[in-house]
Amino acid sequence: MYSIALHGGAGTLARHLFTPEKELEYSIALRLALEEGDAILKSKGSALDAVEATIKVLEDSPLFNAGKGAVFTHDKKHELDASIMWGKDLSAGAVAGVSGIRNPISLSRLVMEKSEHVLLCGKGAEAFAVSKGIMIEDESYFYTDLRWQQLLQVIDEEKSFLDHSVNPHNPTYSPDEKKFGTVGAVALDVNGNLAAGTSTGGMTNKRWGRAGDSPIIGAGTYANNETCAISCTGHGEFFIRSVVAYDVSCLMEYGGLSLEQACRKVVNEKLVKRGGEGGLIAIDSKGNICLPFNSEGMYRAWKTADSEIFTAIF
Amino acid sequence: MYSIALHGGAGTLARHLFTPEKELEYSIALRLALEEGDAILKSKGSALDAVEATIKVLEDSPLFNAGKGAVFTHDKKHELDASIMWGKDLSAGAVAGVSGIRNPISLSRLVMEKSEHVLLCGKGAEAFAVSKGIMIEDESYFYTDLRWQQLLQVIDEEKSFLDHSVNPHNPTYSPDEKKFGTVGAVALDVNGNLAAGTSTGGMTNKRWGRAGDSPIIGAGTYANNETCAISCTGHGEFFIRSVVAYDVSCLMEYGGLSLEQACRKVVNEKLVKRGGEGGLIAIDSKGNICLPFNSEGMYRAWKTADSEIFTAIF
Repeated sequence: MYSIALHGGAGTLARHLFTPEKELEYSIALRLALEEGDAILKSKGSALDAVEATIKVLEDSPLFNAGKGAVFTHDKKHELDASIMWGKDLSAGAVAGVSGIRNPISLSRLVMEKSEHVLLCGKGAEAFAVSKGIMIEDESYFYTDLRWQQLLQVIDEEKSFLDHSVNPHNPTYSPDEKKFGTVGAVALDVNGNLAAGTSTGGMTNKRWGRAGDSPIIGAGTYANNETCAISCTGHGEFFIRSVVAYDVSCLMEYGGLSLEQACRKVVNEKLVKRGGEGGLIAIDSKGNICLPFNSEGMYRAWKTADSEIFTAIF
Repeated sequence: MYSIALHGGAGTLARHLFTPEKELEYSIALRLALEEGDAILKSKGSALDAVEATIKVLEDSPLFNAGKGAVFTHDKKHELDASIMWGKDLSAGAVAGVSGIRNPISLSRLVMEKSEHVLLCGKGAEAFAVSKGIMIEDESYFYTDLRWQQLLQVIDEEKSFLDHSVNPHNPTYSPDEKKFGTVGAVALDVNGNLAAGTSTGGMTNKRWGRAGDSPIIGAGTYANNETCAISCTGHGEFFIRSVVAYDVSCLMEYGGLSLEQACRKVVNEKLVKRGGEGGLIAIDSKGNICLPFNSEGMYRAWKTADSEIFTAIF
């Protein structure tokens, strides 16, 4: 028995801008990523390997706000955040504000396995990466025309923006879409071990070295074999203040709720009451999958050992 | 009715190196900081103001590993972390890896109140500080001879070190003391509002932009009027993985435990089982104070509206 699920971000996804072609493009990308993790789990590989491999595919795609497709900061750079956690022994690794790293999820795993630390930030984290043989990519690797147009439309504004749609007929910023661009994966392997991981480029036009919930163990990512594995996507500040990922785990462990009850309470009650838009993907130690969101949509895919692959957006 | 408590770090404090003079020096510093917060609470000020004012006194003292007395990094600099949370509305602010900031706790409060974000990192956080009129201190402000000697004794080692004692008779590193240098405060004000804050210089000889639990909402700091206010000090990596501060809150809210029961379970059972040394200070919405630690000692002081000021180390 095993289970795996992934997300590619959540938000107001503007159905009227979503052509069948675009929907198919995303659906294929989600499926390709899930197949990568599924193959590992099917051959009795670890949930940790499956989560990392799945997220790497999403990071390598220009479609999602992580790795290759990361949004631009106000300084026209990319600052990436990621974290990973292994439910077997509660080990964890995370990086915040790193530039030039092709796969921040793999760097997070290196922090977990090859350092005495959990969280490394900025230039220091990049120096750690180099010391472990990771190549620093040129900024050009992360250039995509969509992200560049998104930045140009809002760079003169004071605020950071969510990963938004670009409307060629309206050169000023129009929040037709409001996406919380993030990718993540959770998995249960045949040995009963849970793992979770999350990766993001953050907010378009972000300044001041802002980090959201993605690199924060307990907020954006959590895994514990006793309860569940969680990866979040949403308005990061609200997710940090609500310690969302660990909250689901505590509601199960201390409150006696099922995975589904805990997820609904956190995402559809507590976060809604506090104004925190977004969603999460969750798997419990029995392989149950729950994918709640309180926004219009969430890019997602999931599969159990016996099922086919499902993908959905709305 | 109000309550306030502070800590100045925990660890193996080597009683045999602790002269009565040294003990008195620390005791006076702890008392002066607590008096600052107490005066605010006594005149019906907010828990948030009391927590910030108390921590500023500790940051300005050379005795504690935060602000002025911060330890040196491997690069012979200081990288400071801090966070603050307001239990009334769950708002929060934090900074990680900032240099040249005299009072990181006040910068955290500015992030909370004057930005749309919760966590700012490194150079970006410093630029935010400047934009809000905060002066960047010269590195010389943070120079203290003790911290410099501590660095010189371990700079050739691969590892980061806890805030340790310097033994003039033994020039090689000797872990007579193993202190988790951090400062923090928690308070309940007469209006029933809880607040918590934490500030640290991290680990001597730290590299790679390492951050511990101090800037992490849910791990090192948490406050919620419904449950409690918590500030932690200890081996940060273990505290992040155990989401310590929010765990105490969840054990109360979902598990029905009292503040004392929740604190004992987290600090003296769960953390001990996982190898995480340290402690925390906690106040609940009724003004109860609990100051558990699983290390040899924890610098601490506390007071209620009707009591005198208590200070203790072992």
